[in-house]
Amino acid sequence: MTNVKFAPDRGECLRLLGALPQFADLPDALMAGLCESATLLRAEAGRLLFREGDPAEHFLLVRRGCVEMLRFTCDGEERVFHLFREGQLIAEAAMFMPHGRYPMNARSQGSGEFFRLSRNALRKACENHPPLAMRMLENLSLRLYRQVNEVDWLTASSASQRLAAYLLGLHRRQGERLNLPISQRQLATHLGIRPESLSRLLSDWQQAGRIQGRLRQWLLCDLTYLQDLASPAVRSF
Amino acid sequence: MTNVKFAPDRGECLRLLGALPQFADLPDALMAGLCESATLLRAEAGRLLFREGDPAEHFLLVRRGCVEMLRFTCDGEERVFHLFREGQLIAEAAMFMPHGRYPMNARSQGSGEFFRLSRNALRKACENHPPLAMRMLENLSLRLYRQVNEVDWLTASSASQRLAAYLLGLHRRQGERLNLPISQRQLATHLGIRPESLSRLLSDWQQAGRIQGRLRQWLLCDLTYLQDLASPAVRSF
Repeated sequence: MTNVKFAPDRGECLRLLGALPQFADLPDALMAGLCESATLLRAEAGRLLFREGDPAEHFLLVRRGCVEMLRFTCDGEERVFHLFREGQLIAEAAMFMPHGRYPMNARSQGSGEFFRLSRNALRKACENHPPLAMRMLENLSLRLYRQVNEVDWLTASSASQRLAAYLLGLHRRQGERLNLPISQRQLATHLGIRPESLSRLLSDWQQAGRIQGRLRQWLLCDLTYLQDLASPAVRSF
Repeated sequence: MTNVKFAPDRGECLRLLGALPQFADLPDALMAGLCESATLLRAEAGRLLFREGDPAEHFLLVRRGCVEMLRFTCDGEERVFHLFREGQLIAEAAMFMPHGRYPMNARSQGSGEFFRLSRNALRKACENHPPLAMRMLENLSLRLYRQVNEVDWLTASSASQRLAAYLLGLHRRQGERLNLPISQRQLATHLGIRPESLSRLLSDWQQAGRIQGRLRQWLLCDLTYLQDLASPAVRSF
């Protein structure tokens, strides 16, 4: 993992950051201040970009690659919570957490490049420019709302409902042919079901003609069936 | 449910609000501005103070009583997410949600009195006084962190682990003798387990001498056993 000061890429950092709704149309000086201390981080596949519990001094902007946000269970299983891709921001909420530590591990899935931005710069920008603080408040409250819905859904849903909702989510982003972005083992942990139960569900659905494929490659053949299963997770707002 | 403009109680509203860490030691004029538009709301037992999906124009400060935050499942079951008591703030995060609606129902458990404070006043206070915005950001990010932990725990834990963690949480607040603040049926929904499973667990633990009691009154006789069960939910920070 290399960590180099950058100059020529500053423009790209500004452009990627400004493309995010929270940072769109902010004063130039404010954006420059945010990007001033940025460094470019290059990481090979599988490297941890930060660890759960480490002091959260930086947030990351993905320039290239994909990042898995994960925790390890006490028996060493990996629980992947989220994937971040090009142009997305990682750990900006942690910049405001009173305990000042990363709540998860961030791991580069393949090789990747990341802009590393400073916690102090973000906090200073919010203090100096209240409209940015208001956008961050809106962003955090929306994420809180989504997490509450997730808790609701997890306590209410069955394994098959959760798998259907997950596959449909992938389908919205990837279209016809699905490529699972995490392994079946990781997916089982993510959905809170046993790996055997996941295998059994996939093979039952395959036999019934609902889906088709193997390992990470799948085709959804009966969207209506999956939508009916997943529908309790759909909220009206 | 009555909704009256207040004057003599303004001082109590200011005092209760100022006792919350987010609002401690703020400029007097700011606090006065926040409380200026407050009205006092009196509600009898079982009344909804606001409904999920309603425009979120106010947040509430509990003067007296207890409020259940809940959603109804499609088959009419009640899922209680949280209880708010005297001096606590309700729905302040909803004041920043971009969809502008309440994400849950708030229902007065017994009769109660509540100060109803304005969304606009809170947002204006954050815009005019960045230190308040920063505290709200810290508060929301901490709640987001806790919700993420909740999702983690829900996907990783068993029914007995969840019940043990819940009882220990009550024990910390109530001491020796526990009084369940919600019905066993609501508790089962809250923990994402079937009512029959909850009954069975309680009666198994009773037979094994871990707990003692019935309905809503319980005594924890074997704290170590419950702590060992719940320990995967305890995080180091």
